[in-house]
Amino acid sequence: MPNIFKPLDIHNLDNDVKKDYFDRHTPVIICEDKAKEGEKFKVKIRVGSEYAHADEGDHYIGFIQLWNRETLLVETRIFPGTMANKPAQPEVDFFVVPKVGMNLTALSYCTKHGLWQSISKEINIVHGNKT
Amino acid sequence: MPNIFKPLDIHNLDNDVKKDYFDRHTPVIICEDKAKEGEKFKVKIRVGSEYAHADEGDHYIGFIQLWNRETLLVETRIFPGTMANKPAQPEVDFFVVPKVGMNLTALSYCTKHGLWQSISKEINIVHGNKT
Amino acid sequence: MPNIFKPLDIHNLDNDVKKDYFDRHTPVIICEDKAKEGEKFKVKIRVGSEYAHADEGDHYIGFIQLWNRETLLVETRIFPGTMANKPAQPEVDFFVVPKVGMNLTALSYCTKHGLWQSISKEINIVHGNKT
Amino acid sequence: MPNIFKPLDIHNLDNDVKKDYFDRHTPVIICEDKAKEGEKFKVKIRVGSEYAHADEGDHYIGFIQLWNRETLLVETRIFPGTMANKPAQPEVDFFVVPKVGMNLTALSYCTKHGLWQSISKEINIVHGNKT
Repeated sequence: MPNIFKPLDIHNLDNDVKKDYFDRHTPVIICEDKAKEGEKFKVKIRVGSEYAHADEGDHYIGFIQLWNRETLLVETRIFPGTMANKPAQPEVDFFVVPKVGMNLTALSYCTKHGLWQSISKEINIVHGNKT
Repeated sequence: MPNIFKPLDIHNLDNDVKKDYFDRHTPVIICEDKAKEGEKFKVKIRVGSEYAHADEGDHYIGFIQLWNRETLLVETRIFPGTMANKPAQPEVDFFVVPKVGMNLTALSYCTKHGLWQSISKEINIVHGNKT
Repeated sequence: MPNIFKPLDIHNLDNDVKKDYFDRHTPVIICEDKAKEGEKFKVKIRVGSEYAHADEGDHYIGFIQLWNRETLLVETRIFPGTMANKPAQPEVDFFVVPKVGMNLTALSYCTKHGLWQSISKEINIVHGNKT
Repeated sequence: MPNIFKPLDIHNLDNDVKKDYFDRHTPVIICEDKAKEGEKFKVKIRVGSEYAHADEGDHYIGFIQLWNRETLLVETRIFPGTMANKPAQPEVDFFVVPKVGMNLTALSYCTKHGLWQSISKEINIVHGNKT
């Protein structure tokens, strides 16, 4: 069954192989903590923070998803070769319009090593002018 | 974070609302137990075994996936209205070619109620002529 | 820009290389001519009728789509390796529920040779009992 | 069959309804003209330049694709409600790594009005330091 690898605090790992393996696959959510109600809100997802992932036909990051709690908002599907068949950190900027507060989680899928989950991020909604 | 609802033995549930809720979302794998090595093998996935799911713009089955252990083999994305906007059991027949034994799991995604997992099914490989 | 290769009557081609090239990529719609209103209707799509397509990391059939006129009903995304990395005719059975008559077209996408269109098929709707 | 609407020079249209209809659906590629070989290159796609598109269950922008000539690089699938069910210009930033020069085209898909194509954009590759 499809296991979802949970994010580890890789900075505390003293096993370099495991650190590499986890960092290479784990998506990271990069965005502000507050969103303005009814306006487009940018959410960058990047796979890996220190290590880069292979882009080969039998081993590549096939998709990146952005979830709000149990709801899938957007997904980017990536074809092999898009990163020039060289190691890279796949990345996408999504734009969503929140109605209310969100709890965001990203998933990335490696065709060889399965599904990986980001640390979740709470987004608060600012009404009227953002401060 | 995206929770994956695990399959229940709904026939033993005495709570009709819960039984309906789980059956309506849970994908079922329908296929033979044995596959012939190197030949196309048909795997039917049907969402729900007794209850039908809504097909409305804000509430529909958005995709059905077939996994072999931690590897995603195929996915069918369904647009709202494909089931005529009436309750139905979304269904797809996938065809995969196994090299070795597989442990299949299906996932279905409801745009309102999240990800649901099937009971997994072990597929043995028959070499040469299937008996 | 993404060109869509149109289906040829390959049986009339006397150029074997071109015949192979076109047949190998062109999806074929296999279904009945009549559908019963409001009931699930099975539509098989198979890529190729005589020739098989490669399943390699840099060259595979990445998706099969079923359109009703200008509306995308369902799409199956296929990951490389799903056909055991051997030549095969990728195939899927979709199930849709028609409200009114449909004009179906399938598209298949080869990661090396682009988008290919099937011959379109008109589906008439039978009300009440199908005859 | 799925028609692909070609981009018009809407600024020259004197028919406001047609201008609205075309602008509302046509994806626009926003990126630099030059990319550095082997480095991540950002390509923003935005649907609409003046008008916003509905985000309703039976009428929304379902996906945005980025093509390099006849090759699909990346696709973002958008679920209804992601833009808070209000008119908006769906948008995504893709990151690709070019090996050689590219000719980019974006496609967007409206669940009611079909496939729409952007003006294509030629990307030249700069070797070594970008100037």
